[in-house]
Amino acid sequence: MPKEIRLNAFLMNTVGGHLAPGQWRAPGAVPRAYLDPAYWRDLAVLLEEGGFDGLFLGDTLGVYDVHGGNADAALRAGAQAPMNDPFPLIPLMSAATRHLGFGVTASATYEQPYLLARRFTTLDHLTQGRVAWNIVTSYLASGARNMGQQALRAHDARYDHAEEFLDICYQLWEKSWDADAVQAGAVYADPARIRPVHYEGRHFSTDGIFQSEPSPQRTPVLFQAGGSTRGVAFAARHAECVFLAAPTLAGVRKSVSALHDALRLAGRAPDSVRTFAMFTVIVDATPQAARERLAAYLEQADRDGAAALLSGWTGIDLSRYGRDDALEYVDTDAGQSALASFSKLDPARRWTVGDALDYVAVGGRGPVIAGSAEEVADALQHWVDETGLDGFNLACAESPRTYADIVRYLVPELQRRGAYKTSYAEGTWREKLLGAGPHLAPDHPGTRIPLSYKAAPGAGH
Amino acid sequence: MPKEIRLNAFLMNTVGGHLAPGQWRAPGAVPRAYLDPAYWRDLAVLLEEGGFDGLFLGDTLGVYDVHGGNADAALRAGAQAPMNDPFPLIPLMSAATRHLGFGVTASATYEQPYLLARRFTTLDHLTQGRVAWNIVTSYLASGARNMGQQALRAHDARYDHAEEFLDICYQLWEKSWDADAVQAGAVYADPARIRPVHYEGRHFSTDGIFQSEPSPQRTPVLFQAGGSTRGVAFAARHAECVFLAAPTLAGVRKSVSALHDALRLAGRAPDSVRTFAMFTVIVDATPQAARERLAAYLEQADRDGAAALLSGWTGIDLSRYGRDDALEYVDTDAGQSALASFSKLDPARRWTVGDALDYVAVGGRGPVIAGSAEEVADALQHWVDETGLDGFNLACAESPRTYADIVRYLVPELQRRGAYKTSYAEGTWREKLLGAGPHLAPDHPGTRIPLSYKAAPGAGH
Repeated sequence: MPKEIRLNAFLMNTVGGHLAPGQWRAPGAVPRAYLDPAYWRDLAVLLEEGGFDGLFLGDTLGVYDVHGGNADAALRAGAQAPMNDPFPLIPLMSAATRHLGFGVTASATYEQPYLLARRFTTLDHLTQGRVAWNIVTSYLASGARNMGQQALRAHDARYDHAEEFLDICYQLWEKSWDADAVQAGAVYADPARIRPVHYEGRHFSTDGIFQSEPSPQRTPVLFQAGGSTRGVAFAARHAECVFLAAPTLAGVRKSVSALHDALRLAGRAPDSVRTFAMFTVIVDATPQAARERLAAYLEQADRDGAAALLSGWTGIDLSRYGRDDALEYVDTDAGQSALASFSKLDPARRWTVGDALDYVAVGGRGPVIAGSAEEVADALQHWVDETGLDGFNLACAESPRTYADIVRYLVPELQRRGAYKTSYAEGTWREKLLGAGPHLAPDHPGTRIPLSYKAAPGAGH
Repeated sequence: MPKEIRLNAFLMNTVGGHLAPGQWRAPGAVPRAYLDPAYWRDLAVLLEEGGFDGLFLGDTLGVYDVHGGNADAALRAGAQAPMNDPFPLIPLMSAATRHLGFGVTASATYEQPYLLARRFTTLDHLTQGRVAWNIVTSYLASGARNMGQQALRAHDARYDHAEEFLDICYQLWEKSWDADAVQAGAVYADPARIRPVHYEGRHFSTDGIFQSEPSPQRTPVLFQAGGSTRGVAFAARHAECVFLAAPTLAGVRKSVSALHDALRLAGRAPDSVRTFAMFTVIVDATPQAARERLAAYLEQADRDGAAALLSGWTGIDLSRYGRDDALEYVDTDAGQSALASFSKLDPARRWTVGDALDYVAVGGRGPVIAGSAEEVADALQHWVDETGLDGFNLACAESPRTYADIVRYLVPELQRRGAYKTSYAEGTWREKLLGAGPHLAPDHPGTRIPLSYKAAPGAGH
């Protein structure tokens, strides 16, 4: 019996595919479709027809301005710039669907915990339990400056902030209102079953009753994507789904394994967390048609946009190097690990800056596969079997085309193989994803949070 | 030619009518309808059928806990508790309508300016220019504590914060992107037409390019409701629509007149701002039917819920007084003006605490009128003619019933009199409301903001 493969679409509220700069220039493309509610509604309906688990919305809070020291390349290419707020897309897509889940990125570094907790509870009500939070701590210095901070906080300090942020959210979501607090009879809510949260942390505080009655999932499904040691520890404590981005099968296998070790260390069952790898799939009626289309995407990809993205991800200004410069010449402390991952793709090859840009120009740092439904299904099943993955977060070359082809060609093939759902399970997104719920599992720390907390003076978390 | 009367519906993302505690107990009412997206979608469609200008969503960020020193009465009555985030309602309602505008309350005291500016721009894109911001500075101490603050900031200090908040938003909305920056041709956006905002205030800072391309209105329509001296000065600087809440015609006339004086002082044309008064209208096929329904609402109104609201608005714990205590016994510095307004309703009468609670139990501190379409139309036209008002923000006793009756009975009567639109004007909400736009008027300070600003050390705004 083959393992079930789960698919999410991976997008941002920006021009075209956020990992395929320049494809909005293709004939027939609608460059500003992201501003049109009908585009998002129709996309959600398509994904639900194709049995996708969810739509995963990334976000950044600043432009990519490492390349050349400015945002020119990103703006010209429409490379994750402009970038709108992803949250308003959810109510309009959920109103047109019944099962599709919605994962949305929000920053524990810049949001206000009480306001964000209430926003998620509101969305969880309006979607009838189909919302997930992709917890990020934000990595762009441009975002820090937009928020009025002189510079980005240190990486581990951002995670310390995030721990407090999550603790406040858990208290509001899980502890302030009992399950039977809302009676909507003689009284609307019974005050004896509602308690104020007292939390006095080093970075965040709150003191009061949560304003929102419990939503179907209470705590939204928690996604996390951090790959650093601190990030994996954070994921092991909080995440229910982990989003992995590595270019190689070996890299994904190592990440899945490291996560499972960290979960055991944290006292949580490894199979209580679903893992999704970033992937781009170009599928068509024939292998030739798919490969020709990928070749066309690579041809029209905006390399300067790709350089803007890769410079932002690595912190290395790639405008200072030529296409033929070898990758080792741009190794720095900041960017080494990110760029080194390319050489792992094919250790025998001498990777140049140009090779790296060609690689990220379609699909970012994730793998890209183009082929017939059989070829793609073979590949995805191979990745799942060899790594322990549960599924894929699928970026696109163009939207909705990339997803329409997956729904048309790949999904039926996976279904024929018994490796893909033929109908949705009932229940909230947590129940669909984890087979349990609708609330956090008993071994999740969010359910064991004390109602009152005060940080020791000067102590770390 | 009678003056055109404009109508907005006035609601919150809470149980039933937010100024009519306890009506969710009525036979046939659906107490938890506010959690159902279909409720909001159908309401928006109804309001658009009735030619309403907009739907105005209030918000608070804390529960009403002055009464008895706790939130018990508010929670039992469902009196603005629970309270969900209003923002997620907008995309689902705008997707079902074409003309209806959406005013939403957000706090310049607790939100983050860059994040809020991007959220409004996103909504303005998705609604095709139909969004307004009701700028508040938040008055509940419970909200301050939820946000991790020990106590509410002083009233005027909150307005100083808000001035900086608005200045940052104006720079992001009006100055960062030229009108022709987005080309979606050879380049997506031309960097030469996009500039970073540098703002270094005493309370808020930002430094960078706005991530969102200009939306149809750029700056959302700006609503404001402050009635204090500082609040009126703020409105005269920023507001394009002002929301007035006074129980008497004389009070509204005085407020309109004070606003017009302040606008002239600020160098803006008095007729560049639309004024809306809070009102509750119960209309039915006959005068008797309407008055009987109001009597039933008063009968089943939750007086404890009303006391929770009035205690929160005035800062006076009304649980310490009996129904028969005269209003003068509860005068304090904090609450005097708010309670004194009742005695102006009928100076000859000896107002008791019970009278005040009966008054606010349906419609809050705004007037309530029940009658036939002819009677209500006469009254509304009288208010407009005598005060200079442009229209009404209509609260409800029950929703959608109150609004359905207005659409069915009152709107056709006002149309017969030539005092109500028979079709919507085209264009953005600003163009519909002000007859000009789609952007801020040239005499609005938001268009004249410098791109770069640094507060003098220690100086006030």
